[in-house]
Amino acid sequence: MRTDAHFIDVPEKPRVNTQAGTSRLAVMNFLNEVAGDFPHAISLASGRPAEDFFDLDRWLEAIPLYQRELSTRWGVTRADAGRRLAQYGRTNGLINELVAAQLKQDEGVQTRGEHIVIGAGCQEALALCLLSLCREKNDVVLARDPTYIGMTGVADLHGIEIVPLYAHDDGLADELRTVTERLGREGKRARALYLIPEFDNPTGAVLSLRVRKELLDVCADQRMLVLEDNPYGLFRYEGERVPTMYALDHTGSVVYLFTYSKTLCPAVRIGGAVVPDTLFGDAIAARALVAELGERKSFLTVNTSQLNQALIGGILLSENGTLNRLVSPQRDHYRKNRDLMLSALSDEFAGNDEGIRWNRPEGGFFLTMDLPFRFGQEEVLQCARERHVIPMPLSFFSLSGICQNSIRLAFSNVASTHIAEGVARLGQFIRQCEEACHAAV
Amino acid sequence: MRTDAHFIDVPEKPRVNTQAGTSRLAVMNFLNEVAGDFPHAISLASGRPAEDFFDLDRWLEAIPLYQRELSTRWGVTRADAGRRLAQYGRTNGLINELVAAQLKQDEGVQTRGEHIVIGAGCQEALALCLLSLCREKNDVVLARDPTYIGMTGVADLHGIEIVPLYAHDDGLADELRTVTERLGREGKRARALYLIPEFDNPTGAVLSLRVRKELLDVCADQRMLVLEDNPYGLFRYEGERVPTMYALDHTGSVVYLFTYSKTLCPAVRIGGAVVPDTLFGDAIAARALVAELGERKSFLTVNTSQLNQALIGGILLSENGTLNRLVSPQRDHYRKNRDLMLSALSDEFAGNDEGIRWNRPEGGFFLTMDLPFRFGQEEVLQCARERHVIPMPLSFFSLSGICQNSIRLAFSNVASTHIAEGVARLGQFIRQCEEACHAAV
Repeated sequence: MRTDAHFIDVPEKPRVNTQAGTSRLAVMNFLNEVAGDFPHAISLASGRPAEDFFDLDRWLEAIPLYQRELSTRWGVTRADAGRRLAQYGRTNGLINELVAAQLKQDEGVQTRGEHIVIGAGCQEALALCLLSLCREKNDVVLARDPTYIGMTGVADLHGIEIVPLYAHDDGLADELRTVTERLGREGKRARALYLIPEFDNPTGAVLSLRVRKELLDVCADQRMLVLEDNPYGLFRYEGERVPTMYALDHTGSVVYLFTYSKTLCPAVRIGGAVVPDTLFGDAIAARALVAELGERKSFLTVNTSQLNQALIGGILLSENGTLNRLVSPQRDHYRKNRDLMLSALSDEFAGNDEGIRWNRPEGGFFLTMDLPFRFGQEEVLQCARERHVIPMPLSFFSLSGICQNSIRLAFSNVASTHIAEGVARLGQFIRQCEEACHAAV
Repeated sequence: MRTDAHFIDVPEKPRVNTQAGTSRLAVMNFLNEVAGDFPHAISLASGRPAEDFFDLDRWLEAIPLYQRELSTRWGVTRADAGRRLAQYGRTNGLINELVAAQLKQDEGVQTRGEHIVIGAGCQEALALCLLSLCREKNDVVLARDPTYIGMTGVADLHGIEIVPLYAHDDGLADELRTVTERLGREGKRARALYLIPEFDNPTGAVLSLRVRKELLDVCADQRMLVLEDNPYGLFRYEGERVPTMYALDHTGSVVYLFTYSKTLCPAVRIGGAVVPDTLFGDAIAARALVAELGERKSFLTVNTSQLNQALIGGILLSENGTLNRLVSPQRDHYRKNRDLMLSALSDEFAGNDEGIRWNRPEGGFFLTMDLPFRFGQEEVLQCARERHVIPMPLSFFSLSGICQNSIRLAFSNVASTHIAEGVARLGQFIRQCEEACHAAV
């Protein structure tokens, strides 16, 4: 039993949940504070969607539209449909068939409404999946290092062990097999592999078709699910589309996670999970997983707001079931921002800066950059204070404290007109650090 | 490690989580199935709010109203306020000050916005509280038996032990002290006592001022929080109002849970928790609890839909911060339904039915009735099939399988015109059972 000086533990410093040494929330709080303390700094840290495309007035009109659809479907008056909409509802969701149709058209994800669980944002669906899959003490989840904070946060908080994978794409499947077999010898069960195969957060990288297939083979062999998180799938700016792992899977080893936070807006808090028809060929187990997700949901949030579901439902109706047209201006904007950032980086670091590299993401909201020196919490503060620009240390996403010399640059939520200036300021800071390093040597 | 015949456990019968022998969800599924199989039966089982008062069209207009307020507060255009509203937001909520003002006016609950955590419904707030308070294996939560399924469900699912209290009101504080001390000797910590002091679900009972104070004394002594759930506080039909335990508390031992699901509608999915200024005099611990709730929330649902918060915010603005006027027609309706049910019961069971008793609730949605025979799952089915009326066995709410001879009757969501007929049918069923009992003897 812990000492009871305080009724609630009051950590003197942020709670240490992982080897990385900082809790997920502490990281986010830190970044919010930096942004608050330096409100005029250019932030390249925020991976939020661009607000220019949020059209609240129009979207609210989608609710009565969906209400009319319900009134037809249920054979009741429009007012009655509104009243039923405002009531408690089905735990696993109301608009599941419309979502299924959209996922099929836009993402090639074939499913039926009853295999979808709609959550209060994708985060809830992810939490439900992890809690449902990792119920025993020896159940663990695997993830690449670095990875998305929302996944590691929920696992940490519920005492679920996260096992990091370090290999580059080429060696990933081999590492996955080796690690899974080692875990088995240790009496642990690798229950799920969390991945963002398309425009990863934080790296911006895409997993190739070959690697996706290799990973699926290992997962099928080892009876381990892939949790395929795909928030950025509709934001590809160049290159050929790679099928989702869900679409490539033939054995029932992929749970697909979706969200409307990036395509529409975060405030609707609608996302969810698609459970495949079978889990490794077992249809009963798949239905049991859907039921388990629903049971957990019923005691966490009862059911997802039917008003918010109606908003999404109305938009899907008015867009003929696809968001492709609606996100087109956003996609163009993000592509433009990415191009501005890439060209500013090329201008700023014209090939003669040793140890400075960045990737060219084919889509999504982020790119990553390697630096010839450590870039952590102190450096963010210094960079914000002295150069008025805020990048995101990649180590904040690390499970084990790697990536100390890298940063994530987000181009999704920064004004296009600020990108060149932001990168120029970052360049000044980097050169200043390099000079300090050289002076110290 | 469990056997892995299925990847996910497939229980042959509903999972047994408690001594009561049925899982919470199995109970709810069962009732939904009964209602689905007998759609023309009169349901006295549903404790949902009455839909006649859901005014979706008007309520949706509250969103732009709140948007205008934000535009003034933030000094931005109305469109910009809308865009910020549609974005991610503060984890612990946006409308906290308006909620604080409403809780003060309507419930006598004095707090400040920063001590409120807004959840995706009160259920999320309750789950966050239980998970935050019961983090060690030996941390337990106490509750009266029978009690609300939403509390027992979340505790069961997360392996938190629930210790039942059986005493009637007069002996409750004594039992609480005895049980808490016994738990201490067993190396367990009683972390919280869950209560619905006002118009309890399922019993409809009100805790007297004296008992509330006695319980507060024990909780302060034992350093155990009260989780005071108050969904029905605004629905008092007669008698003098008793102050909330939060208002009576002077030591910092009550977390207050609120919801807008009953006063406005469930589909907004807005509720929350109020943490007192100190926990047993410790202000740092209180702030740590607020932070802990927020950390957990950030990884379960990120933040509560700002659209739904804006809807509530707009209504609170247009109602001058109190819901008292708005719920007045509902209150009248529920009072009328209660009176119809009480008078139908008096007519049906005119004092000459031995072993048949019911309470007269001063408010809320429910009353309970004792019968001279067992009324469980089979009896509900038989009653629905043969008499076309669906009551709720009280044993469904029991932690330990008590209350086998009692039922809960909800008058909130049944048409007023059906109440007399529903009670008459129930009377027919009860007499039929009594005759069967006598015949068997």
